[in-house]
Amino acid sequence: MSDLVALCKQRGFIFQSSEIYGGLNSCWDMGPYGVELKNNLKNRWWKAMTLRQDVVGVDASILMHPTVWKASGHVDGFSDPMVDCKVCKERFRADNIDMTKPCPKCGSKDSYTDVRQFNLMFKTQMGAMEDTSSMVYLRPETAQGIFVNFLNVQTTMRKKLPFGIAQIGKAFRNEITPGNFIFRTREFEQMEMQYFVKPGTQKESMEAWKEIRWKWHLENGLRAEKIKWAPHGPDSLAHYADAATDIEYEFPMGWGEMEGIHSRTDFDLKQHQEYSGKNMNYVDQVNNEKYLPYVIETSVGADRCLLAIMCDAYRLENEGDADKERSVMKFHPALSPIKTAILPLSKKSELEEVSTKLFEDIGGVYKSEYDVAGTIGKRYRRQDEIGTPFCITVDFDTLNDHAVTVRDRDTMVQERIAIANVQNYLKDKFKF
Amino acid sequence: MSDLVALCKQRGFIFQSSEIYGGLNSCWDMGPYGVELKNNLKNRWWKAMTLRQDVVGVDASILMHPTVWKASGHVDGFSDPMVDCKVCKERFRADNIDMTKPCPKCGSKDSYTDVRQFNLMFKTQMGAMEDTSSMVYLRPETAQGIFVNFLNVQTTMRKKLPFGIAQIGKAFRNEITPGNFIFRTREFEQMEMQYFVKPGTQKESMEAWKEIRWKWHLENGLRAEKIKWAPHGPDSLAHYADAATDIEYEFPMGWGEMEGIHSRTDFDLKQHQEYSGKNMNYVDQVNNEKYLPYVIETSVGADRCLLAIMCDAYRLENEGDADKERSVMKFHPALSPIKTAILPLSKKSELEEVSTKLFEDIGGVYKSEYDVAGTIGKRYRRQDEIGTPFCITVDFDTLNDHAVTVRDRDTMVQERIAIANVQNYLKDKFKF
Repeated sequence: MSDLVALCKQRGFIFQSSEIYGGLNSCWDMGPYGVELKNNLKNRWWKAMTLRQDVVGVDASILMHPTVWKASGHVDGFSDPMVDCKVCKERFRADNIDMTKPCPKCGSKDSYTDVRQFNLMFKTQMGAMEDTSSMVYLRPETAQGIFVNFLNVQTTMRKKLPFGIAQIGKAFRNEITPGNFIFRTREFEQMEMQYFVKPGTQKESMEAWKEIRWKWHLENGLRAEKIKWAPHGPDSLAHYADAATDIEYEFPMGWGEMEGIHSRTDFDLKQHQEYSGKNMNYVDQVNNEKYLPYVIETSVGADRCLLAIMCDAYRLENEGDADKERSVMKFHPALSPIKTAILPLSKKSELEEVSTKLFEDIGGVYKSEYDVAGTIGKRYRRQDEIGTPFCITVDFDTLNDHAVTVRDRDTMVQERIAIANVQNYLKDKFKF
Repeated sequence: MSDLVALCKQRGFIFQSSEIYGGLNSCWDMGPYGVELKNNLKNRWWKAMTLRQDVVGVDASILMHPTVWKASGHVDGFSDPMVDCKVCKERFRADNIDMTKPCPKCGSKDSYTDVRQFNLMFKTQMGAMEDTSSMVYLRPETAQGIFVNFLNVQTTMRKKLPFGIAQIGKAFRNEITPGNFIFRTREFEQMEMQYFVKPGTQKESMEAWKEIRWKWHLENGLRAEKIKWAPHGPDSLAHYADAATDIEYEFPMGWGEMEGIHSRTDFDLKQHQEYSGKNMNYVDQVNNEKYLPYVIETSVGADRCLLAIMCDAYRLENEGDADKERSVMKFHPALSPIKTAILPLSKKSELEEVSTKLFEDIGGVYKSEYDVAGTIGKRYRRQDEIGTPFCITVDFDTLNDHAVTVRDRDTMVQERIAIANVQNYLKDKFKF
């Protein structure tokens, strides 16, 4: 993991937030390659989830009415148990340590304070009056932004069950012990879909979504042996769920949740109906029935999914062989932040004209780089490390044969392609 | 404007946030069409700004180190003057009213409190300790996320001046008097680019960016007569700027800022150098010079730009003529939330098979709708109101001639197109 964190900084994927000020604990900024990679991932999820007749999107605000979080149970129940060591002042999540043993930091015995419940929601004041009536929370999950909009979406879109509402957005949790790079952070992004179904049909719907979501991760290039199902047993089911399972990835620090697929029953709609006094029933005009739909949720941690994709793509090849050693990011080409690199063999002006023309043609379609600095070998290695699928080298033969050398990132095989055919060649490779 | 707000709700573009709880003042949620429209707008900006050799992107976190806002001047200076009427308790921005006159709400004279400065940044506590050392702000602008990452981006991307860093993201301002729908909200989204140049070249760079940015708004379909330059005179220049101009749009409530193009000098980098103690100099190895770059900023309010696009696209045609009256959103096709609608003339099963097949083919490429409910005229009107460029009608002739009727939203002209040619027809229309 430390290799990956170093590469992420060195190559411009991910920087520590406010690094020049010593950083802000557990907050991270996406650098130029990180933002392209993450945007590609988010767009891919959005397309997979919403280019279907039965799912539409929304984008709800981060600041919501405080009663939303009363209804959802977060005000009363979204907390972690916290203890301090009285000797060294270190703070722990009580459920992460064995309190009958010495403090894992300083080794003191019987040094713990009482366990207190610590609510994980960030609070802030809205409006110019600083009294409690204007206290609002930063949303700790995007899901409630979907539930409170259920009726507006269903009626304006004239949707019949089953149908889903998808959303990508930031959420905030004041974690007691964030960590493991971008795995657990206080500011993070979710890609969630709530699928509304007729009560009684939730099991088959959950099975269908499990299959769809599992395939999506494989289609992103994750190796099948690195992901697994982690079903919640009766003891670990959330109070609102009648079934739940996670898709876990084997990160360097161990298996960890990347996506949750939860059968949430009608818990959320029922709660919002009760707290808002608004009738949230779905009206089935064909069968003349009214009821609260059940919900199947698919919830991806965008940053965790990004971390999994980076861990999975990162390979060190021919270690120890100085001539052949390379680190390479074997991203799925759809996810690669940079699609092609145009590399003139030298800085001589004869090559510049044709290279610049090529960059303008290709770079206007695919995010590309133009790099003329250093040996061609070094430039290949640099593109390998950021996962660029194709390097296109313009050399002196190009001036005669009007062709370029295209190098494949994974096989390192080089092909000579006529400049006139490069666009079609790439179009064929980038079919996704 | 009230017509537009009503259409936005009724047609699923924009809902009031937490509406079932009475709403949250000045916060809005994007509905299914709103999120597609806004995503199209953001993608278009991102492509225009980053598919160039001299601009890269970042995505910084919303929560930043508090000293960032000390350095930027926001802690000390980002405030509005506020007064209350002692009689009716209404609160005003002191610079928006004439304090020598009676209260505009209740008519009382000499009823104002003293003017107080109200800082517009939202505050929250980070970490499990509630002391001031862990107080953080929700960023009031995205620009500082770019400045604090300047050196990391410049060195990892090996960029030479001039080059730019682009970012899209949420920002938060606790406005005393938000309003005008999504024009002034407390939670909003910015599309910003900071372009770093050699001191002395800022004027020509600003002129170049003014031209690029002006063209972009026209290319989105805004009518030239509805936008204008609003240069800042010496009195209204911000303390950090040596030149500034806005692009304003003529909204229903009057001209309002949509984008600012500001020459920010080296103010921000100098401040961060001073507060962080880190040397922020750019090293020009060719000319052996070191200096702090100057900055040209282009800053679009994404929600304001969205509002301008909706206002501009919204047309009421043939008003009063019941047969021909229609309201239509004449979006640029690249921005339209829905690209095509597949409309089987009737629910008869003969038409269903060919219509479904068509929907699967087209809907997998372009966000599309399948609508079989109501008269064909009503369905056309509905698609007009959400700005769908093409309606594709499948009728009983289709079963014989294997062709469909394609209706153009703007001209309402209908063309008969062979099913085999529909994909190419659309590809040609959607070249952007």
